[in-house]
Amino acid sequence: MIRVTVWNEFIHEKKREEVKQVYPNGIHEVIADFLRCDDISVRCAALDEPECGLTREVVDSTDVMIWWGHCAHDKVPDEIAKRVQEAVLKGMGIIFLHSAHMSKPFHLLMGTSGTLGWHVDGDKERVWVCAPSSPIAKGLGRYFELPQEETYSEPFDIPEPDRLVFISWFASGEVFRSGCCYNRGRGKVFYFQPGHETCPTYYIPEVRTVIRNAVRWAAPEDRVEELVCPNVAPAEPCGV
Amino acid sequence: MIRVTVWNEFIHEKKREEVKQVYPNGIHEVIADFLRCDDISVRCAALDEPECGLTREVVDSTDVMIWWGHCAHDKVPDEIAKRVQEAVLKGMGIIFLHSAHMSKPFHLLMGTSGTLGWHVDGDKERVWVCAPSSPIAKGLGRYFELPQEETYSEPFDIPEPDRLVFISWFASGEVFRSGCCYNRGRGKVFYFQPGHETCPTYYIPEVRTVIRNAVRWAAPEDRVEELVCPNVAPAEPCGV
Amino acid sequence: MIRVTVWNEFIHEKKREEVKQVYPNGIHEVIADFLRCDDISVRCAALDEPECGLTREVVDSTDVMIWWGHCAHDKVPDEIAKRVQEAVLKGMGIIFLHSAHMSKPFHLLMGTSGTLGWHVDGDKERVWVCAPSSPIAKGLGRYFELPQEETYSEPFDIPEPDRLVFISWFASGEVFRSGCCYNRGRGKVFYFQPGHETCPTYYIPEVRTVIRNAVRWAAPEDRVEELVCPNVAPAEPCGV
Amino acid sequence: MIRVTVWNEFIHEKKREEVKQVYPNGIHEVIADFLRCDDISVRCAALDEPECGLTREVVDSTDVMIWWGHCAHDKVPDEIAKRVQEAVLKGMGIIFLHSAHMSKPFHLLMGTSGTLGWHVDGDKERVWVCAPSSPIAKGLGRYFELPQEETYSEPFDIPEPDRLVFISWFASGEVFRSGCCYNRGRGKVFYFQPGHETCPTYYIPEVRTVIRNAVRWAAPEDRVEELVCPNVAPAEPCGV
Repeated sequence: MIRVTVWNEFIHEKKREEVKQVYPNGIHEVIADFLRCDDISVRCAALDEPECGLTREVVDSTDVMIWWGHCAHDKVPDEIAKRVQEAVLKGMGIIFLHSAHMSKPFHLLMGTSGTLGWHVDGDKERVWVCAPSSPIAKGLGRYFELPQEETYSEPFDIPEPDRLVFISWFASGEVFRSGCCYNRGRGKVFYFQPGHETCPTYYIPEVRTVIRNAVRWAAPEDRVEELVCPNVAPAEPCGV
Repeated sequence: MIRVTVWNEFIHEKKREEVKQVYPNGIHEVIADFLRCDDISVRCAALDEPECGLTREVVDSTDVMIWWGHCAHDKVPDEIAKRVQEAVLKGMGIIFLHSAHMSKPFHLLMGTSGTLGWHVDGDKERVWVCAPSSPIAKGLGRYFELPQEETYSEPFDIPEPDRLVFISWFASGEVFRSGCCYNRGRGKVFYFQPGHETCPTYYIPEVRTVIRNAVRWAAPEDRVEELVCPNVAPAEPCGV
Repeated sequence: MIRVTVWNEFIHEKKREEVKQVYPNGIHEVIADFLRCDDISVRCAALDEPECGLTREVVDSTDVMIWWGHCAHDKVPDEIAKRVQEAVLKGMGIIFLHSAHMSKPFHLLMGTSGTLGWHVDGDKERVWVCAPSSPIAKGLGRYFELPQEETYSEPFDIPEPDRLVFISWFASGEVFRSGCCYNRGRGKVFYFQPGHETCPTYYIPEVRTVIRNAVRWAAPEDRVEELVCPNVAPAEPCGV
Repeated sequence: MIRVTVWNEFIHEKKREEVKQVYPNGIHEVIADFLRCDDISVRCAALDEPECGLTREVVDSTDVMIWWGHCAHDKVPDEIAKRVQEAVLKGMGIIFLHSAHMSKPFHLLMGTSGTLGWHVDGDKERVWVCAPSSPIAKGLGRYFELPQEETYSEPFDIPEPDRLVFISWFASGEVFRSGCCYNRGRGKVFYFQPGHETCPTYYIPEVRTVIRNAVRWAAPEDRVEELVCPNVAPAEPCGV
């Protein structure tokens, strides 16, 4: 059983009517719903819960975390962001969605600014598969389309991905590395760009396929307890 | 002084009127012309010369080779392709242009099929810089445009680039990794997609900037004489 | 069921007494024996069989190939080497053992010379895990030891691995990147250095663990039929 | 002129006699001395200066920073560490020496824990060149030796290097990725392991060659002013 925690700052859906109409119970509930299955259990967490819903107990019992945040990145306390980062380094998988490229845990794990160009004109997006043998692309064709999305454009300030899975085309003329895999410590990280709050992106079958695939890809086999520099005995005790 | 050899199969320009009009003396001459400057010397070579114009002497005195080929990849003898590959492994830089993704030297250096999707509708292409600090992107803005080009699309069967510098957007809906850097042996390899034979691509200032930058980037500091597995003395002669 | 084919040139074991004593039926039979289990089926192939034992039928029904060769790399016909390469690009996994770094299929897939330094003094080798979360390192501690091995040393002329899993220490003072992962086309490639013909390396439990892990890691989920450049219809048929 | 700032926490040299004997004026002064030349200007900064000697003015006028720290990583305020990270993302080069793998700026730029194994027995170290064509290895042979160093061992918790230049062998049986290159934002990062405070490492010619090479490699051509997500106009204003 893969234990997923879907974290959402859950603000837009309560404050903005056009978002509420798309995600009445929050983006997290829609993602949780389509993920739940025989071998994936899901719970949700949101910014306004104690410790952002990410108590040590929750984090320690999460195999893969999904992160959606946009307007309140700085409301996540540094210590919670650090807790999430450390869980990844110990083995937890994490999937950053859309505007999470500016979240604290993403910045902590990538080391770069995560900056990119953007405009919100509801352009058509076409997500191209550039690594067809990646398990995250399983079940997809050469590309899939989103009728409208927020446009993100290069340059995207990220480390060179360990594997680049998707590149997106936007009708308004832009390209973007929209699916990026990383190993960080014992954990796996996947960034996936689609998911603007006013677009019904998380109802689209191919988007669900990607996130489901990414959860299975990111699930750890095991974890380490601590991140320390051990003082180890010489491997050749008698020296050379 | 960087010594460049521009290799062109030089067939389309002699056989097809619409190509001859764009490149009356061959693509190679246009490239050679804009590259020549105080610290870059250029000569050309073509398929119909003895040894494809790539005698051992020519290859040994080339710092950076530029390769354009399309309809006659299989006319290049295996031994010439191997000679070019080995020169790269010993330190020579190489820039593969456009349809050279199916050339023998590219296949030998990449190890993959180099396959991609394509169609020729003269679509507009926009080349986006995704690694703005790469020396190959020096002097460019966020992107530059080509009014018409052959469309190439993902998936492009190449090894994950050591550094991905450009991603292209095509008006007909495709994306393509259009600028890819690799280290191979002691040499550097750059693949750059623009340059269909019926389009005046190599007259476009930004394209010239890229190729000029790539020549400087790929120029070797030194080379090795041989590619061998030396039987070396133990570094610790007395053992552990 | 993962279908493995263990290929061995099978010459040393027949000609040299000190090798025969270690591997009386050939290195391939020892590897085949420890690999066989409920979900892994194994057959062997050798250089002196028709088509090197690698007929199209054999290759097409192999999920993961294991390759051991040393003194007869050039006896493998180019077309057989090419057949193996193409199978990998279509999805077959491959594990190159020890001196296979100079085999034709390795060269075809890597694009580099595969050269390295070496000496045969039966030194102690210690294989360090540098990517502990790799599935290929599963079940191993921080390192494991081989009482005696042929010494390989850097520089090893390979592309930067997509993931470096092992680095080896040799008592005679050398280091070597001894476990290297690559994606090539749809297939996965793993190079693993231990296995000199006079050393009982393939009887060592940790070596068996690594090869078993690598087989599972390299097994494809699916494959493509052809390696071609499709002429595709524009994704946006009406243009921009 | 490349403007280098050598930062040192400068504590061991004042407090511990055996360190003072090796570096009477501090490690930074020794590094500064051998770096200074016609095209490299050097100044130093230390922990006990105001703002750790890293005022905005100092950072803004530094092309390449060198960082040595060990026992007082946590004495560097978060905002100073962040300032250094951001300077790198905007283009400044940085070289992390030895125990700087646990410094705040290294953690911020790598995103991993930087943990490793270690013991201090003054073992002999041999630094092997695994990327001989890297400009950082220029002027070196196959390897160079340090008569005594602190031993660092794998696994080293870092992202897969963009280029791995050195791997070290230790007489006590360990290996370590001792020279690692990264692109982060517009800047370049190099980690170089030698340099324990009680060992005269920074007097060794090859170590000086490496640091000098790394300074030239890491020097930026230009920088950006800000790290922001620009709201950009659509590249295709009329849409598709």
